[in-house]
Amino acid sequence: MCELLGMSANVPTDICFSFTGLIQRGGKTGPHRDGWGIVFYEGKGYRTFKDPNPSCDSKIAELVQSYPIKSCAVISHIRQANRGEVSLVNTHPFTREIWGRYWTYAHNGQLTGYEDLPTGHFKPVGETDSEKAFCYLLHEIEQHYPDKPEDMTDVFRFIASRCDKLRALGVFNMLFSDGDYVMSYCTNNLHWITRRAPFGKASLIDEEVTVDFQEETTPNDVVTVIATQPLTNNETWHKMQPGEYCVFHLGEVITCNRAEIALQSENTISGSA
Amino acid sequence: MCELLGMSANVPTDICFSFTGLIQRGGKTGPHRDGWGIVFYEGKGYRTFKDPNPSCDSKIAELVQSYPIKSCAVISHIRQANRGEVSLVNTHPFTREIWGRYWTYAHNGQLTGYEDLPTGHFKPVGETDSEKAFCYLLHEIEQHYPDKPEDMTDVFRFIASRCDKLRALGVFNMLFSDGDYVMSYCTNNLHWITRRAPFGKASLIDEEVTVDFQEETTPNDVVTVIATQPLTNNETWHKMQPGEYCVFHLGEVITCNRAEIALQSENTISGSA
Repeated sequence: MCELLGMSANVPTDICFSFTGLIQRGGKTGPHRDGWGIVFYEGKGYRTFKDPNPSCDSKIAELVQSYPIKSCAVISHIRQANRGEVSLVNTHPFTREIWGRYWTYAHNGQLTGYEDLPTGHFKPVGETDSEKAFCYLLHEIEQHYPDKPEDMTDVFRFIASRCDKLRALGVFNMLFSDGDYVMSYCTNNLHWITRRAPFGKASLIDEEVTVDFQEETTPNDVVTVIATQPLTNNETWHKMQPGEYCVFHLGEVITCNRAEIALQSENTISGSA
Repeated sequence: MCELLGMSANVPTDICFSFTGLIQRGGKTGPHRDGWGIVFYEGKGYRTFKDPNPSCDSKIAELVQSYPIKSCAVISHIRQANRGEVSLVNTHPFTREIWGRYWTYAHNGQLTGYEDLPTGHFKPVGETDSEKAFCYLLHEIEQHYPDKPEDMTDVFRFIASRCDKLRALGVFNMLFSDGDYVMSYCTNNLHWITRRAPFGKASLIDEEVTVDFQEETTPNDVVTVIATQPLTNNETWHKMQPGEYCVFHLGEVITCNRAEIALQSENTISGSA
């Protein structure tokens, strides 16, 4: 398995604090030794840092941790390989273009029977179930929406419906972004937190680091962090439900099917009574 | 205009020495202050480092310069913007997938009348003539070769024919790679050198650095470096001719239309007598 980390913010924000927590799990406090990667959007452009080496002793991770790259949309991943060898080509996140936008994706989980998923002209380069699933999602999006529609909420609902199909093949937790929106989809392990004024202090679980966000922010900042497991031990994180998806934009959650999921699960309970 | 740097090698080789020379031209010994980027292939995977800031005072360029990342195929670019604003989305190299391989491209020059080039489903994300030309080349390749053909020499000859069309629109010097092959195409400024045993010493033009390749290599190493202008002042670089293209594989030049070009230019001379 792996760990995911994402961020959505209304002002360019650095992710040094959360990333510091995450990379400890890449071989030190966690077993995810098989590479790591991070994508920072800047406008429609992006930067990627990747390394098939453990994040806890990567020179490049050290740079990312100490050099505050500010962004409104970030996706990161540390890997514990299950399918596909440990190599750069299999290191998440993956980025491809549709509608003249770069889309970035990272996956946590494992799928079976994914080999025949249609991917059209989006051909996987590596050997992972994750990249295959990414190509499948892009292909489905492009087939369903040859051009970028006005209403992006619609697109994310559609993507979630395809994620449901992937969830039927195993464990599928994922982060997805076009640089404007950050989408999270949960099978079993995904948490998020939105920080806004009044900001307080937060302490990392994986490293003895405390940050006082009040010193780092302005009163209008809104920043959401999404992670496989909570990264801090003195804040309340939302735990996502199986089949739940959330879409974040400029730090705020703008769509979430939590109510629907709750209803479904009630119905299931009453159905089995 | 911009400067290009490429490398093809038969063993994973670091490009620290050449990159050190190049980045001085990014705002110090040269005017290319509008960003820089470098792609290192590792197998079918790749790493990219990019920055819209001048390379001569970039923290990330410093890392790339000091941390020897070894690769058999590298493409790098420093930018002096002409078309498209200074931003990450317009920073070369650009990378996209066809046939389940990542293709990387960087361009030096300027085109006019490029707006209507067909690009199919490869939509530019930024605003540069360079990225548009890249999307055009990928589209043409995919149209002409829906699947990867056996003979890649054929593919590069085809790409060169499309480069000829781009050259008719202005200045088109470029580097192109799928991680196995590195192709260079020249309109006016492109030089290359192949280093092999017996290795000697080389001195950078742009910085007081000398390297003794004999200390850094084994007798079987073959390394080709391609650059807009020669990077060293004590070696003989091949100057490419207008319309010339070369394909390098594992450090060796495997195809080059130099003889053809020479013949064409002789014919032109006798035709005008």
